[in-house]
Amino acid sequence: MLGVVVRKKPSLPEGAAEKLAAQGVATVHEAQGRSVGLMKPYMRPIYPGAAIAGPAVTVLAQPGDNWMLHVAVEQCSPGDILVVGCTTENADGMFGELLATSLRARGVRGLIIDAGVRDVAALTEMRFPVWSKAINARGTVKATIGSVNVPIVCAGALVHPGDAIVADDDGVAIVPNAQVSAVIQKADKRIQEEESKRARLAAGELGLDIYQMRPKLEAAGLRYVDSLDGLKD
Amino acid sequence: MLGVVVRKKPSLPEGAAEKLAAQGVATVHEAQGRSVGLMKPYMRPIYPGAAIAGPAVTVLAQPGDNWMLHVAVEQCSPGDILVVGCTTENADGMFGELLATSLRARGVRGLIIDAGVRDVAALTEMRFPVWSKAINARGTVKATIGSVNVPIVCAGALVHPGDAIVADDDGVAIVPNAQVSAVIQKADKRIQEEESKRARLAAGELGLDIYQMRPKLEAAGLRYVDSLDGLKD
Amino acid sequence: MLGVVVRKKPSLPEGAAEKLAAQGVATVHEAQGRSVGLMKPYMRPIYPGAAIAGPAVTVLAQPGDNWMLHVAVEQCSPGDILVVGCTTENADGMFGELLATSLRARGVRGLIIDAGVRDVAALTEMRFPVWSKAINARGTVKATIGSVNVPIVCAGALVHPGDAIVADDDGVAIVPNAQVSAVIQKADKRIQEEESKRARLAAGELGLDIYQMRPKLEAAGLRYVDSLDGLKD
Amino acid sequence: MLGVVVRKKPSLPEGAAEKLAAQGVATVHEAQGRSVGLMKPYMRPIYPGAAIAGPAVTVLAQPGDNWMLHVAVEQCSPGDILVVGCTTENADGMFGELLATSLRARGVRGLIIDAGVRDVAALTEMRFPVWSKAINARGTVKATIGSVNVPIVCAGALVHPGDAIVADDDGVAIVPNAQVSAVIQKADKRIQEEESKRARLAAGELGLDIYQMRPKLEAAGLRYVDSLDGLKD
Amino acid sequence: MLGVVVRKKPSLPEGAAEKLAAQGVATVHEAQGRSVGLMKPYMRPIYPGAAIAGPAVTVLAQPGDNWMLHVAVEQCSPGDILVVGCTTENADGMFGELLATSLRARGVRGLIIDAGVRDVAALTEMRFPVWSKAINARGTVKATIGSVNVPIVCAGALVHPGDAIVADDDGVAIVPNAQVSAVIQKADKRIQEEESKRARLAAGELGLDIYQMRPKLEAAGLRYVDSLDGLKD
Amino acid sequence: MLGVVVRKKPSLPEGAAEKLAAQGVATVHEAQGRSVGLMKPYMRPIYPGAAIAGPAVTVLAQPGDNWMLHVAVEQCSPGDILVVGCTTENADGMFGELLATSLRARGVRGLIIDAGVRDVAALTEMRFPVWSKAINARGTVKATIGSVNVPIVCAGALVHPGDAIVADDDGVAIVPNAQVSAVIQKADKRIQEEESKRARLAAGELGLDIYQMRPKLEAAGLRYVDSLDGLKD
Repeated sequence: MLGVVVRKKPSLPEGAAEKLAAQGVATVHEAQGRSVGLMKPYMRPIYPGAAIAGPAVTVLAQPGDNWMLHVAVEQCSPGDILVVGCTTENADGMFGELLATSLRARGVRGLIIDAGVRDVAALTEMRFPVWSKAINARGTVKATIGSVNVPIVCAGALVHPGDAIVADDDGVAIVPNAQVSAVIQKADKRIQEEESKRARLAAGELGLDIYQMRPKLEAAGLRYVDSLDGLKD
Repeated sequence: MLGVVVRKKPSLPEGAAEKLAAQGVATVHEAQGRSVGLMKPYMRPIYPGAAIAGPAVTVLAQPGDNWMLHVAVEQCSPGDILVVGCTTENADGMFGELLATSLRARGVRGLIIDAGVRDVAALTEMRFPVWSKAINARGTVKATIGSVNVPIVCAGALVHPGDAIVADDDGVAIVPNAQVSAVIQKADKRIQEEESKRARLAAGELGLDIYQMRPKLEAAGLRYVDSLDGLKD
Repeated sequence: MLGVVVRKKPSLPEGAAEKLAAQGVATVHEAQGRSVGLMKPYMRPIYPGAAIAGPAVTVLAQPGDNWMLHVAVEQCSPGDILVVGCTTENADGMFGELLATSLRARGVRGLIIDAGVRDVAALTEMRFPVWSKAINARGTVKATIGSVNVPIVCAGALVHPGDAIVADDDGVAIVPNAQVSAVIQKADKRIQEEESKRARLAAGELGLDIYQMRPKLEAAGLRYVDSLDGLKD
Repeated sequence: MLGVVVRKKPSLPEGAAEKLAAQGVATVHEAQGRSVGLMKPYMRPIYPGAAIAGPAVTVLAQPGDNWMLHVAVEQCSPGDILVVGCTTENADGMFGELLATSLRARGVRGLIIDAGVRDVAALTEMRFPVWSKAINARGTVKATIGSVNVPIVCAGALVHPGDAIVADDDGVAIVPNAQVSAVIQKADKRIQEEESKRARLAAGELGLDIYQMRPKLEAAGLRYVDSLDGLKD
Repeated sequence: MLGVVVRKKPSLPEGAAEKLAAQGVATVHEAQGRSVGLMKPYMRPIYPGAAIAGPAVTVLAQPGDNWMLHVAVEQCSPGDILVVGCTTENADGMFGELLATSLRARGVRGLIIDAGVRDVAALTEMRFPVWSKAINARGTVKATIGSVNVPIVCAGALVHPGDAIVADDDGVAIVPNAQVSAVIQKADKRIQEEESKRARLAAGELGLDIYQMRPKLEAAGLRYVDSLDGLKD
Repeated sequence: MLGVVVRKKPSLPEGAAEKLAAQGVATVHEAQGRSVGLMKPYMRPIYPGAAIAGPAVTVLAQPGDNWMLHVAVEQCSPGDILVVGCTTENADGMFGELLATSLRARGVRGLIIDAGVRDVAALTEMRFPVWSKAINARGTVKATIGSVNVPIVCAGALVHPGDAIVADDDGVAIVPNAQVSAVIQKADKRIQEEESKRARLAAGELGLDIYQMRPKLEAAGLRYVDSLDGLKD
């Protein structure tokens, strides 16, 4: 569906964005059951250390054409994260300092774009975080319309407007809007469980023992030997 | 044409290199009309923050063979940028600290290489900037001749000796020697225009209004709705 | 051979690890004759500046399954480097902060993994160096056994348990256990030779003269001209 | 959501599959508005000439694990097309002659798999069509459960169970179940329009004239010259 | 330079196209000195067995936009080959059966496109040969102008309008217009030399002897041994 | 170790090559335990339908340099398969019709090369089978020595001289020389077991029942539902 701008999107529960940003991508992804909700690892931050979360404003754009990003700015509210997918693979520099200035003026927390970005020195200096497929000075046209706030596939992951986006040095995760509270809870539980494990591992205890893996490994046929010599297969 | 070293190349207008370096890759690329003159985005700096410009000394090398880089050093003058293409795709480490020491002794500003580079920790420490396709310790032979200062295709872009190279965190742009002054002028104009726009965008004005996009978007058929429900297509 | 854990591996000569780490990947690779013993350049450090060496503990893992990493921890001794290959190409995040905590508790110097890694912000903060194919939050299962301390192919290079691993910003080199002392000696010789050359190059002398390349280039047919005009081919 | 098998899926209108197969991927994709509903072009048929359509039975599988394909066979009905996505990128040979024999016994028309396939000589001989990311003899385990008939992202495209899959030498298209009839109608209209155009083009008429492009090109600034000499920019 | 259509291009010598097609890509490439004039190997024919040559009509197109292909048709004469490059990497299906019908009506011999192509079953049936980067049903817009008959970089190679294009199962070669006769002569010479060598090799004589490589190999240090045991390095 | 030609290699048991070729790559790979011994899937045959096996003569070559292939020909005996790896990634056309003529004169069965090949139309016509990484007309030099019949890593797999190579439409497998007889036996057993299963599957029985997967799937937590509605996670 091209050529549609949807003006409304669901919001996140109070405090959810801050909580998810603190929990981080890896933990949130695990809390979701590890099967879906993660963008492909080619999505990388333009500078290290940023960690954000917020509801997605989505854009479906034509390759080499950033017209719809200008349209999308108007649909953004404070705390939002702009998420841009293309109708086809493209690495052109669809986004730069001017659009970042505009997004910042509206309180947008960052950009996720399955394409290229430019002016990265300026973006880094103004600390506007971007996760992208490429850094590319290649400019774009403004000739063909796309859509804003429709469901998109971005970097291999399905994103609906209002889904929670979580992004840090490990990549970009998506939590469906309706599951945000449940995922936060599970992630908290996971963090608590890891805490005690971290202490035991730091003290030299083995994961083999903490997670009681030895019987299962034995059942799976794992053999311990001093040398490969004499092994048949 | 293999096996030729051309000793002469056109020079840049006085002050052009400094000017282009300050304008930056993205702006210079736009000022050139956005169609050609940009290397592919796989060309990345080995450390962030470098921004240089200067006339190209070009090298056409055999894959896995850096013999012609030694030949090229002699053809370099202060302010030059060495640009290396290969006869075929290659990511071997053709360049390292010793060659950088030699280039620096001749006043060369940096290296653009469509292959690999090594000793990156040392190069970073000596602040010798390199844009390359790969970081790779793989060594090379010195067995087959190529050419110096002939036209080459480097990372998808045509480069003639004496063309202006501009390189920063956004990538690498090339300005044909004869167009340098005109491009600088256009880039300056663009920078001035962007200045006022930056201020308006920072104040919350929308690009939709500044660039008067609304009538064109409407003519293109863009629709605004509150929800996708009920839309036919 | 899947499902075998070999408990013993050869050790390195006293002081060899420190020496190799100081010599660095590019020099060690050259000292080995430049033909084999280097991982592919897609193996990149998660943060710049780390430089380590040590004997390899090897792991052969199933894609998307990090069970054998837990098994391998127990086989690690102080100074070791864990090297993980997969039975097939995979970029999942097989390793994170908890496993790093466990390896650090055992004195392991770092990780080389032909797959993905996550929690890179935490790993960077604790300065646990990792060279990997990808940064990826994608979690893994613990369902299928592999092997520990068997010969593996990792990032295109053959690694035996106890081989010396050298890793820095230039990538990852492997020195077969039996050749460690000889390679260290050759690398030392190379470093000494380079020292005098560096000084001469810094003083403006040309590699063409230092390495006496001019007669060979002439014999190979290299021509010097002032322009391409009039050249037939 | 891992670990769920959904037993029911919507069916296609009578005759829709045959109609879509005859219209072909390119036409159906155009009839859908060209924005979404097409898998990435790395999905290739294992032999040329096959052209099928039918409702999707979807599978979400773990990398290197084909357990859920066996589960999915039971959910297939005559005329279905099996569509397999993975939780992460994988090219292992998840499917071969035995599974094809089983699918054929149930009347399944073909397989779409964002992973690898093997036994391609046998599959070609039995004319069981497969579109895959890779041909790969690499075998898989049966250790971790996934899901059947849940929404999946396969080769960059969203697929719901019961969506119409169209696959031929041009690739793989997906039509959402609810839009099948409308898309067929539009595709038919497009085919009719093309027919007359084909005749006129074959007779030497130009697209420039048939589609009345000349005024628009002129408005866009297109210039016709005899030579580039003397052009300023 | 975007937005220019150059109406004139140099022609090839009488009979040159037929001659070059018969000599083939590999031979023509060798006759050119092996350094430049060959497109990257990702350019593949859509069906095996086609072998064509002819003068290039060049197109520079925007990604995802095939408007300029329609413009280019008018500039084509019998025997020409259409060569399409993009301002940036793109794999969309810019070309299909209708455009092929139009090109055939004008006597064009085939298409070389650094992007995607669709309707490949129909193109194969009508025996219209295409060398492309991808097969892709993805449709394109007609929104942004490019240029026709300007110099372009296509698949890593520089192409001027009127250059001779040679394409067969080995890929695509380019011979600069001014060098066509000389290259044909050299290629003929090479073919004659190979003829006698083929007969000697088929009779069991070794290349080592025919090309008198043994002394050079010995001088380069090649050693013959019965086993690696006991070798020091 | 560069610069060594080893004249002797182990031979295969009588009839082993014919047997392995008939069993095929997928079956042999499974019989080896599925963990190692398979080249990466980018190795593709230049024409479909070839299926060969034989002992490996190995070559380690410099990128863009096919000198050692000429050296290797002399070391080949009837029934051998030539296997070429490079010291670094390379796709140049190292091999063509003349070398194939020479290998055929010596009775060599085919070529496996982790690089490019050219003259594919001629090779197809003479039915000389090649599995390669690329088809590429790019020519090579003869300047730097490598080695023949040393252990190499080719397309991610370790190959020793005399190992059995098996190659067909599914790819390329390697069986260590000492394991050939055992692997043949296991592969035969697997083929027999598959025969009965094929018949049962063709008759409509399900793999779920034949392999008794249902209890294990249930134990793993697999749930069957009629719809996703109402599912919590």
